[in-house]
Amino acid sequence: MKPTDNISPYVIKRLPRYYRYLGELLEEGRVKISSNELSQKMRITASQIRQDLNCFGGFGQQGYGYNVEILRKEISDIIGIEKNNKVIILGAGSMGQAICDNISFEKRGCTLAGIFDKDPLLHGKIIAGHQIMSDEHLPQFCREEQPKIAVLCVPLESARGVCDILIKLGIKSFWNFSHFDINHHFDNVNVENVHLGDSLLTLVYKVNVPRETDIII
Amino acid sequence: MKPTDNISPYVIKRLPRYYRYLGELLEEGRVKISSNELSQKMRITASQIRQDLNCFGGFGQQGYGYNVEILRKEISDIIGIEKNNKVIILGAGSMGQAICDNISFEKRGCTLAGIFDKDPLLHGKIIAGHQIMSDEHLPQFCREEQPKIAVLCVPLESARGVCDILIKLGIKSFWNFSHFDINHHFDNVNVENVHLGDSLLTLVYKVNVPRETDIII
Repeated sequence: MKPTDNISPYVIKRLPRYYRYLGELLEEGRVKISSNELSQKMRITASQIRQDLNCFGGFGQQGYGYNVEILRKEISDIIGIEKNNKVIILGAGSMGQAICDNISFEKRGCTLAGIFDKDPLLHGKIIAGHQIMSDEHLPQFCREEQPKIAVLCVPLESARGVCDILIKLGIKSFWNFSHFDINHHFDNVNVENVHLGDSLLTLVYKVNVPRETDIII
Repeated sequence: MKPTDNISPYVIKRLPRYYRYLGELLEEGRVKISSNELSQKMRITASQIRQDLNCFGGFGQQGYGYNVEILRKEISDIIGIEKNNKVIILGAGSMGQAICDNISFEKRGCTLAGIFDKDPLLHGKIIAGHQIMSDEHLPQFCREEQPKIAVLCVPLESARGVCDILIKLGIKSFWNFSHFDINHHFDNVNVENVHLGDSLLTLVYKVNVPRETDIII
């Protein structure tokens, strides 16, 4: 199945959640699921689920529901999980280390290829099986390894300079923990922002203005 | 201004971004901003901005735009930044530590009140000015300090048990880094999920299916 053009970013945001829930169902040994049951798990309407999947060509069979394994494989292909993108981490402070400890890149179509930090005290230290390298090695490393994704864990004040270097070295995709608005300063880049400050404020709003049912986007 | 009922979760997600951008404008000494300029910064249409702010009663003045300081103060009040919610962190591993290092709770209407971990080797160690405490102290601590928000940095397999204890102790709001679907198992809770795995998969999709313009939700 090929994604049609102009998929809404909200649909894109939901794809990983479909993939995750279908993986859980598969582990439970489930063969099929109705759009109603999937709808309860996803906390969106069954009609929205049908609309979402129709963006990619539609999969369900009227009266049968969805085959869990097939749908999961289709979504995996749509996301591109089998492509095996090489990833580098910029910044080996506590956030870079927490990401290494808590994220399995391999399960998500990625391979961690290298970790860089400008602090000489960190060079040579090993995280997740990789020796932390100096930023000075970036040009040669990128020429040889051709990483596609950079995880940006540097402080806000260094972020712009680091992005500038990486983009010149051919990296176009950023998993951004730095609170720097990459899209405001660079064109033609793919950015996924993890803005922890904004996330905490969203929760503070929910505490302040409680809703009957918490809605997940 | 009071939020009207049934505010869309997408509007709620945008509030922290409005607040942040207006803060940046204020630091630059800006007094007012047109909805067009704010729209370029937010990467949504000017009409969407007017709609968003109308959910909270509307602020702008036709032909003038928005007063930066007043709008920021209104949004701060809507989010509830001045309420000063007490926060506890559960799990002092690398993710708990990265949050302490990278997030200013005070700037976001929160006070870090305590950090807990079940690992005795961590007890007494100091992070962000707080001695890590044993989970056994939770009941007494919650009775005395009445924290409102728990930051969940425990492994997936412990998350359900920890939530059960916290909810019984009166905590209803969770900043959830655990990959455990709290809303699926507990009612009447406010949850803000930081699902790093889903976030990485969203980026992998963008790498796989590049768009002309990256859209920020």
